[in-house]
Amino acid sequence: MEHKLTDIKEIGEFGLIKRIAASTKLRNIETIKGIGDDAAVIQCNGDRIVITTDMLIEGVHFDLTYMPLIHLGYKAVAVNLSDIFAMNAIPKQITVSIGLSSKFSVEHVDEIYKGISKACELYQVDLVGGDTVASPNGLVISITAIGTVSDDQITYRNGAKANDLICVTGDLGAAYLGLKLLAREKEVFEINPNEQPQLIGYEYLIERQLKPEPRQDIVVKLKELDILPTSMIDVSDGLSSELMHICQSSAKGCRIYDDKIPIHPQSVALSDEFMIEPIIPALNGGEDYELLFTVDQKHFEKVKSMENVSIIGHITNVEGQYEIVFQDGTVLPLSAQGWNAFTEE
Amino acid sequence: MEHKLTDIKEIGEFGLIKRIAASTKLRNIETIKGIGDDAAVIQCNGDRIVITTDMLIEGVHFDLTYMPLIHLGYKAVAVNLSDIFAMNAIPKQITVSIGLSSKFSVEHVDEIYKGISKACELYQVDLVGGDTVASPNGLVISITAIGTVSDDQITYRNGAKANDLICVTGDLGAAYLGLKLLAREKEVFEINPNEQPQLIGYEYLIERQLKPEPRQDIVVKLKELDILPTSMIDVSDGLSSELMHICQSSAKGCRIYDDKIPIHPQSVALSDEFMIEPIIPALNGGEDYELLFTVDQKHFEKVKSMENVSIIGHITNVEGQYEIVFQDGTVLPLSAQGWNAFTEE
Repeated sequence: MEHKLTDIKEIGEFGLIKRIAASTKLRNIETIKGIGDDAAVIQCNGDRIVITTDMLIEGVHFDLTYMPLIHLGYKAVAVNLSDIFAMNAIPKQITVSIGLSSKFSVEHVDEIYKGISKACELYQVDLVGGDTVASPNGLVISITAIGTVSDDQITYRNGAKANDLICVTGDLGAAYLGLKLLAREKEVFEINPNEQPQLIGYEYLIERQLKPEPRQDIVVKLKELDILPTSMIDVSDGLSSELMHICQSSAKGCRIYDDKIPIHPQSVALSDEFMIEPIIPALNGGEDYELLFTVDQKHFEKVKSMENVSIIGHITNVEGQYEIVFQDGTVLPLSAQGWNAFTEE
Repeated sequence: MEHKLTDIKEIGEFGLIKRIAASTKLRNIETIKGIGDDAAVIQCNGDRIVITTDMLIEGVHFDLTYMPLIHLGYKAVAVNLSDIFAMNAIPKQITVSIGLSSKFSVEHVDEIYKGISKACELYQVDLVGGDTVASPNGLVISITAIGTVSDDQITYRNGAKANDLICVTGDLGAAYLGLKLLAREKEVFEINPNEQPQLIGYEYLIERQLKPEPRQDIVVKLKELDILPTSMIDVSDGLSSELMHICQSSAKGCRIYDDKIPIHPQSVALSDEFMIEPIIPALNGGEDYELLFTVDQKHFEKVKSMENVSIIGHITNVEGQYEIVFQDGTVLPLSAQGWNAFTEE
């Protein structure tokens, strides 16, 4: 009577989410959008409430040997706010649930909440509730963020149109490279505890990994410039993966250009050290928490004038065709290797 | 430079929550109520959105040797809805975040979500989002529930007035006794795997532990009868603890009567077997998920007519005095031993 069981790795995180979404039915008219975007959307008379949640588990999403607790608290909030901004919404509240094993003291908890408070202060968000429980092993943090946006300003993943410009904020790949650097130095330290970590010259990469900043500035600026993106998503699993989410949701294709993809000089330098092409972490590294969005071509001049925004390509009508063009003219298909907690680490 | 660290057990879960609440500042006018009730309250034009969250961790909140995964999914939703009903609100959406170690297969996840779906169907709630991540050890489920209620119908913990009737739904102590029974039978089974578990006659207690039902019926009935409780809370940590929350929030005292406290015959029978007074699990057992509320005396006849509601005492003006009166006239102070995940199991 024993049935064959399917390993979660076989279908991956996205496969699992698809499976859950497929068996889910929406019943309430107030539920505007369920599973399948950066955040769920709930009707609140004329306005929209957006809700997102993320769970971070010690040993999977963070390593306390190089992640200070105050940064962990800050980052746990930041990654949730990033999803709210990706809906073109303004975050207003968070709840924080935390599972703590006996190795954590009250003072450790204080450090985590100092980081949470700091993020709340900077992004003007209220901590309104949560849960505090014991955990047999390590630390778990689950945060839910709630934001608001007016009905006509909300941006989904599915609105990209052919010829829309594809834009991305900041630079890509740095957080992933920062993580690789920290992991390398941890290994060196474990072999020789007297060795000092070699982080000089890569401070930016470390900061991108330990203290990401969600792009509130971009949401504010887009509003100022009266630009409503046709689609938007936050870059948490790598540019390729996120771009494919937008294209799949919008039933479109895309073409991006290798030399337009923003990469920080420190990312280039460390990629050289690791002997990888800098474009690889930019396309497939995780945890950048930048915004990827598409806008109508009519906004070209305005978008070009924006600081910290790069136009990297355009949307095409060829559904399912996702291409990257290199400077020598080579065209390669994008693939979504995306960071997957079930298969990596 | 080493500082003395404080064990979380020294201040307990409530101490930790107080500490977090004390360092929290609310900034947004839309935030009506933060930490300190069954749910946070957010303004949504004339209506109110209420939000609550609970985290369940394997080995702390549940034991998979006797908790089937489908029931676990169901219960994880139920306990959150219970908090929404305690605000006199109607739940509308949930998000589910889940951390899974490698021992869980896709089919296991299906079972959990079957339970979640079942609860969503029965209570007409939409699953709108979540997160699915890997966990190094065991299973973690974190659920956030969202509900709505009109501004003039919301019930907090802090509205109890002197002479208000104290009412509780269903019966108390059964879920705790069900857990004790399951733990005993697990022990017997570990010693002798051929021994069949002795659960006959205690089916109600097992069901109360494995499949609690939040009191939607009571919220609906109160509305039908045009009764607005002056305060309400759900009974998750034991009657004593919850009653003291209401009294402390309302700056009042209380007097309840031993013989009025509803206890199921199976609870009495199993308490006898365990040689404990049935009033002990009723006062201090956890996970009943009943509603405890106070109403103005003018509603006495109406409340008396309600099925599944017991009037167990009244609120007094003596702030800080929480008393239970026994049939022989003895008066004892209530104490909130409440179920505490940091000190017990």
